[in-house]
Formats: sequence, structure tokens, C-alpha cells
Amino acid sequence: MNFKKAVVVLVEPSGNINVGSVARLCENFEIEELRLVSPKCDIKSLETKKMAMKGLNLLEKAKEYSTLIEAISDCRQVIATAGRMDHGDIPLHQSEEVFEWIKKTSSDHNEPIAMVFGREDRGLTNEELLCAQRIISLNQFSNYQSLNLSHAVAIVLYEYQKSKGLNPISKSKTSFNLAKAEELDNCLKDAENILLEIGFLMKHTSKARMSKFKGLLQRADIKSEEVALIRGVVRQIRWAINKGNI
Amino acid sequence: MNFKKAVVVLVEPSGNINVGSVARLCENFEIEELRLVSPKCDIKSLETKKMAMKGLNLLEKAKEYSTLIEAISDCRQVIATAGRMDHGDIPLHQSEEVFEWIKKTSSDHNEPIAMVFGREDRGLTNEELLCAQRIISLNQFSNYQSLNLSHAVAIVLYEYQKSKGLNPISKSKTSFNLAKAEELDNCLKDAENILLEIGFLMKHTSKARMSKFKGLLQRADIKSEEVALIRGVVRQIRWAINKGNI
Repeated sequence: MNFKKAVVVLVEPSGNINVGSVARLCENFEIEELRLVSPKCDIKSLETKKMAMKGLNLLEKAKEYSTLIEAISDCRQVIATAGRMDHGDIPLHQSEEVFEWIKKTSSDHNEPIAMVFGREDRGLTNEELLCAQRIISLNQFSNYQSLNLSHAVAIVLYEYQKSKGLNPISKSKTSFNLAKAEELDNCLKDAENILLEIGFLMKHTSKARMSKFKGLLQRADIKSEEVALIRGVVRQIRWAINKGNI
Repeated sequence: MNFKKAVVVLVEPSGNINVGSVARLCENFEIEELRLVSPKCDIKSLETKKMAMKGLNLLEKAKEYSTLIEAISDCRQVIATAGRMDHGDIPLHQSEEVFEWIKKTSSDHNEPIAMVFGREDRGLTNEELLCAQRIISLNQFSNYQSLNLSHAVAIVLYEYQKSKGLNPISKSKTSFNLAKAEELDNCLKDAENILLEIGFLMKHTSKARMSKFKGLLQRADIKSEEVALIRGVVRQIRWAINKGNI
């Protein structure tokens, strides 16, 4: 199979050395792009550049975004990494399973694969984790919570490269048109608005409730056409309610 | 099997940040000892200590040796890592093979396993490589020659821990309260009725449409509490619509 473009996304990294090291790793492992969500350090510092070595070019081209959703708006397959143990219901996977899934759900689309890593001190929020269809936990083999960010990146990229080297398990791979993070997000915002209007949700608890729906749909690897189906339902419900109110 | 003590040996490391990072990794991956052969940097520097984090204790206890042979004199199973491609006849292996070999050749002896890493710029000499029974090449999956020392250590230690097969995720999973077929079926019948009422579905196509929703939810392994959540939504929608019609 052809492997697609892959991008590494760092959410609010705070260490110059880490960002530089990750740029170098991206170069080592043939990652096409580094993206940064609200970096909390000086990515133009000498220290960062020194660590980047041959990845300097990738570092200098790294784009900045204000939210994770924006950073992955063009990506279809999104994987995140988690260190904390308190993710509630969000299912965690081993890296092999995740990269096997990457192969299985690969489609003809050319959108890049995104690999998302969180803050040095507290990783990704549950909301950010829910932007990914699959979440890698490195916990079981290491005391991940104190694993340095760039070392976590090294391990995940190594596993990713390795998965490309092995022959994919030849399951009948149907084309799998995964919904993009932004599509799903917009659809759920639509749904949230109508559920607030009809009083199913309340302002202060809607976020938690909606994240339950999102978790459910991410587990299912929801497709673009299914998102469209749900949007159709939401539109029709809105119409039915407004009609009554006129 | 019982796993033995494992030690990490760095030969002539020249980077303060690297030595500190490796100490931290040793702590992350439960390596008992860090050994240094003629370090070319200041291992007592603030920079080194800062990078060591929780591995500071291991760093402070790290012993120094003048040759590799001395550093591994008490070890029986020795593995080394190589980046260069010009090793002459010295055979290289993949990390999985090497750790499989570690298991197979394990004896009742209590000597530690040694994992040896070379200089940042030119790795280990052929003579040093020959001190090891097995040599791991990370070349095939990355441009190893420019892989940072501490990242190479991260990958090898991760593979080592993985070979020990600790705590698979599935065991730590809490029980998964899968919805019963009937629960899901009743819920979807409710939803179908309201979608027919509001004109989203038509009688002759509703079955096909609804089976799309069902497929989506089944792929997610929907739980009982999630079925209840959806029923709550359906109920509230019905209420909102009837309210308008009264």
C-alpha cells in the first residue's frame, strides 16, 4: 500500500529542547510536517534550533495554530497519545493495534495522518483526546507519566515506521471514508444547539454530555456519510420543531 | 520467567543533555544501573541534572569505567546498538529478535543484562561491537545515523520492556457494559418512529436507513448507559414536537 503524508502535532509544548528534538525526530522518521498548537516556548530560540539538527528545515516551516481542531482540520486519521490514567471511558490502545488500524482504515483520500502529543506536564485534555479516533497508551511498558515528550515521540514514530515496514495483514480492506475531525465537530455543535434548545441539555453540563456522544462515535470510526446522515436528522428535527412554533 | 537486573552502558557520551535524558529514561523503564565509559562531558553539570528529573538518583550513582570491557565485566548477556552500515561481517539484528534471544538464553545466573550505546558522532568501534553477543540495528526503520543518542536509548528500552510483556491494557480494563440486543433494538424503534413522524424517514426506506444507524452503533460496541442516553434524547425531541403541536 501507499503510505500517506504524516504530520506530528504538539499541543502547547513548553520546552525549547523538546520542540527542537521533535523536529529532528520528524526528519529521522520521514514525517512531512510539524504543527504546533499555541506553543508556550520560543521555537525560534537558538536552543531549539540547535536541537533540531537536520530537522531545522521542518522546524522553520512548522505552522502554528490556536486550537487542536484547526491544526488537524485537513486530517482524516487522527491518533493521540495519553499518559494519565484517568480518562474515564475513553478507550486506550497499544501502538501496534493503532497502526494496524491506520492500515485497515486507510482510504484513497490524500489527507495526512496526524499524530498528536500533549503538554509536557499534563498531556492532552479529554476534549482533545476525543478529537482522535485512536489513542495510544505507552503506560503499560513504562512509567509514561514522567517520560519526556520527545522520547514519547521517538517511540511512537519508531513504531509507526516499523508498521510501514511490515506486510499489512491482508484483511479484506474496504474503502473506509473516515469522517474528518472538523466534520464531526461541526455536526456535534449542531446537535448540541438543538439539544440545548429543547432542554435536553443544560448549559453547564452540555459539554460533558456531548463528549459522551463524541466518544461513542469515535469508537465506531464514524464515516463522512454517517456524519452527513446525523446532520440530516438534526436539520429535520429543527424543521419539525420550528414548524410547530410558527 | 524472572527478569534480571539490566544496566545501560554509554560509551564516551559527549552531551550533558543526553546523559541526563538517559538517566531519566533508565528510571522510566526500570533499569537498575547506568554505567559510563570515559564520559566526554560534565555529568555533574546542572544541565545534566536538570534533564535527569526522577533519574537523578541513578545519575548520581552512575559508575565510571575507562573501557567497555571493564564496564561489563560482571555481565553475561550483552547487547549493543549500531548505526553505521560498515560493520564488515558483524551480523546485525532487529530488536525483537535480540530480546527474544535474551529470553531464550537466560540462565539461572544472576549477572545483569547490559545494553551498550556508543558515541553520539560515531557509535561503537567494531572492537566494542564484538564485546556483545547481539547487535541491534535501528537502521531499517529510521535514519538512525542521525538519531539522537537518548532517542535511540528510548526506543531500545521501550522494546526491552515490551518484550517482558508487562500489564497488557486489556487486563486493566474495567468491565464493559455492552448494551443488550433488545435494548438497542427498542431504542432504535423509538427513534425510527419519531423520524417517520417528522418526515426524515419514509416508510419504504426507513428500514435501510435505520440499519445504517444500527451498524454505526454496533461498531462502537454501544453500552447500556449510552442506549439510555439516546432514548433520553428521543423522548425529549418527542416532547418538544408535541408541545408545538398542542
